[in-house]
Amino acid sequence: MAGPSLIHWLAMNYPFRQSTLRSALPCHGLDALLVIHLPNIRYLTGFTGSAAALLVLEKQSVFFSDGRYKTQAAKEVAGARVIIAQKSPLLAAAEWLNAHRPPRGAFHLGVEADHLTVTGRSRLISLLGPRTKLKAAPPLVERARMVKEPEEVRRIEKAAKLGAELFRYALDVLRPGVKESKVAAEMEYRARTRGAAGMSFPTIIAGGARSALPHGQASEARLPRRGFVVCDFGVILADYCSDQTRTVSLGRPSRELQDGYKAVLEAQQAAVQAVKPGLGVGEIDEVARNLLRKNKLDKFFTHSTGHGVGLEIHEPPRIASGEGEVLQPGMVITIEPGVYIPGKWGVRIEDLVVVTRQGCKVLTPTTRELIVI
Amino acid sequence: MAGPSLIHWLAMNYPFRQSTLRSALPCHGLDALLVIHLPNIRYLTGFTGSAAALLVLEKQSVFFSDGRYKTQAAKEVAGARVIIAQKSPLLAAAEWLNAHRPPRGAFHLGVEADHLTVTGRSRLISLLGPRTKLKAAPPLVERARMVKEPEEVRRIEKAAKLGAELFRYALDVLRPGVKESKVAAEMEYRARTRGAAGMSFPTIIAGGARSALPHGQASEARLPRRGFVVCDFGVILADYCSDQTRTVSLGRPSRELQDGYKAVLEAQQAAVQAVKPGLGVGEIDEVARNLLRKNKLDKFFTHSTGHGVGLEIHEPPRIASGEGEVLQPGMVITIEPGVYIPGKWGVRIEDLVVVTRQGCKVLTPTTRELIVI
Repeated sequence: MAGPSLIHWLAMNYPFRQSTLRSALPCHGLDALLVIHLPNIRYLTGFTGSAAALLVLEKQSVFFSDGRYKTQAAKEVAGARVIIAQKSPLLAAAEWLNAHRPPRGAFHLGVEADHLTVTGRSRLISLLGPRTKLKAAPPLVERARMVKEPEEVRRIEKAAKLGAELFRYALDVLRPGVKESKVAAEMEYRARTRGAAGMSFPTIIAGGARSALPHGQASEARLPRRGFVVCDFGVILADYCSDQTRTVSLGRPSRELQDGYKAVLEAQQAAVQAVKPGLGVGEIDEVARNLLRKNKLDKFFTHSTGHGVGLEIHEPPRIASGEGEVLQPGMVITIEPGVYIPGKWGVRIEDLVVVTRQGCKVLTPTTRELIVI
Repeated sequence: MAGPSLIHWLAMNYPFRQSTLRSALPCHGLDALLVIHLPNIRYLTGFTGSAAALLVLEKQSVFFSDGRYKTQAAKEVAGARVIIAQKSPLLAAAEWLNAHRPPRGAFHLGVEADHLTVTGRSRLISLLGPRTKLKAAPPLVERARMVKEPEEVRRIEKAAKLGAELFRYALDVLRPGVKESKVAAEMEYRARTRGAAGMSFPTIIAGGARSALPHGQASEARLPRRGFVVCDFGVILADYCSDQTRTVSLGRPSRELQDGYKAVLEAQQAAVQAVKPGLGVGEIDEVARNLLRKNKLDKFFTHSTGHGVGLEIHEPPRIASGEGEVLQPGMVITIEPGVYIPGKWGVRIEDLVVVTRQGCKVLTPTTRELIVI
C-alpha cells in the first residue's frame, strides 16, 4: 500500500504543515504544542483514527495512539514519530514529555483550549508537574486550515459535485406522501456507492411546517401535498466535506411562499456576489441580513450567514456579525441565509464558495431557481 | 403534535430525572449544575438539537438554546423553562445566573469537567465573577444514565433487533469482489427505510488483512476471495444506539483462522456468562483476557472488553481492567473481545447485553457460530 500513501502524502504535505506550525511556536512563547483535536491531527499527519495526540516540538513531532490503531497509524501518519501506548494518548504524551523535555528550566506547553477539557487539563497538570507550564495556545492549526491548499479545494469541489448529483436523485423520489427519511435514504445510499465515506452531517429533509425548523433532520413524517421542503445535505469524500441547501416546492407555491423564496434568493445571491478578499466576515452577514430587512423578514433569519467547510463540516471562519475574520483567497465558506416562519414554512438556500483573488467561485452547481414538483 | 410528545414524556420521565439530579446536588456541595453535554441534556429534557445548556437549580431547571431551535425546543423540552438567546447557550446561562442567583454569599456552580473546555471555563469565570465558584462536579448524569430504565432497555433491544436484521441483508451481498462500502451502503439504506435515524457509528466492514484493523471502516477495497470479514455496526432507533460485531469467513477458513475464531468465541461466551450484578467490570475483562492468554492470543487483544451503550454509542461503564465500576441490573454493555494479527487477519465477536438480577440477557439475536460464505 506504499503507492497510494505516497501520493496522498505528496498531495497533502504533512511534514510541511508541521514545520510551518513549528516555526510559529516561538512567536507565541511556546516550546511545544499538544494537539488533541482529531481534525487538526488529521490535517497535520494524515491520521484518520479516533484516538490520538500529537506533540509538535522544536525539532520533531511525536504522535500517540493506542493498540487499536497500531497498523493504521504506521500506515497513515506522516512526519511524526509514532508511539503506541496502552493508555490514553493524552497521558502517553504527558509521560513522554516528562522523559524527554530539557532537564532544567521551565517548559512552555501550548494546549488547545477550545478542545482540552477541564478534566484533561487537571490530569496534564498533575502528571507534568510544576516545571511544565500549560499555556492556552491560539487556534494555530484552525487558522492554517482556514486557507485551503489547491488540492484541498479540488477535493471539496469534488465533494460538492457529488452532493449536487445526490440532490438530482432526491428530486426523483421527493413527492407528496413519501417519508422524509426515504428521500434521505436514497441520497445516502448513492453517496456510499459513489465513494463517499458518509454524509458530512445528518441529512435535513424538512417538509411543510417542518421546513420552519432550521435543523429539521429527515424524520418519519410524510411530505405534504403542498409546501416547501428544505433539503440540506453534504458528503465526506476523500476526507473533505461538502454542504449545500436547496428548498423545493411541492405544488405551486402561494404568493407568500413565492415572495419568501425570492427574498431569500436575493439575499443569498447578493452575499455571494459580495464575497471577496479583504472583506470582513461580518460585512457578508450584513449584506444578507440587510436585504431580508428590506423585506421585513430579517427577524426570521435566526442563524448566521455561513461557516467554513473543510475536514470538518463546521470550521472557522464563522460568517456572522461580531466576528473579526477577514476573507482571504483559499477560504471555503457557505453562504446560507434562511427565513423560518414558525409553524408555517421555511426557506434556506446555501452554496459552498471558495474565495478567489477577485471574488469567489461557487462550488455547488445546482440551480437556485425554485424547483416546483 | 401534543399526543406523541405526551407519550414520549410519560415513557421518559424527564422531570423525575431532573428532580433526582436536583436532590443529589447538596451532597456534592453544589447550588446548581450546569449541564452542557448534549446527550446528558437529551436524557434530562428530551431535547434533540445541537446547541443547548441546562441549569439545574435547587427549585427549577432552565434550558438555553439559540434561534435555530426556538420551535423545536418549545416542542421537545420537558421539565425546564426554555430561554432562546441570540448568543451561545453557555454564555446565555451565565448571564441568566448572574441575574437570578441569590444577591449575597457564594454560589457553587457545578460544571461537567469531562465536557467543559478550558476556553469555556475561562469564559464562565470572567462572566460570572468571583462570587460564583466553579466546581468540577462528578459525572452525576452519566452515572444515572448507566442504569437504564425499562423503556430504555426496550428501545435498545429494538435497535439491536434492527441491527441484526441489517446483518442478514449484509450476508446477501457480502461476496468476494464486492466493495466493503457496498455492503455498508446496503445496511445503511435499510436502516433508514426501517426507521433508524442513522447508524450509531461509521460502519466497519473490514475484509482480509483489513480485518486486523480493529477500527477498519468500510472502504473502497474489494472483499478478497478468502479470509475473514469483520462486520461491526449499529443503528440509532428512537434515540437509542445498538452495537454488534460478527466475523464471517469468505471460503473455508484455514486451521489457523478456525482456531483464532474458536478462541475469541470461547472468550466472548465466557465473559457473557460471567456478567452478573456485583461483579467488577475489570473482572469481566479478565475473564475474556485469561481465556485468550490460555491460547497465547492475549497480546493480540489490543482493546478493552466492552463499554456501555445507550443514548451514546460509547458511554460508561468501560469494561476494562483498572476500572472501578460494579455491574448493576439495568446496565447495558457490550462484550467484544477480539484478536488482530497485523497484516494477516482479525476476529471480533460482540454482543450487547443487559445486566439482569441473576446474570444478563443477550440483546443481539444473531448466531455466533462462524458463518462461511
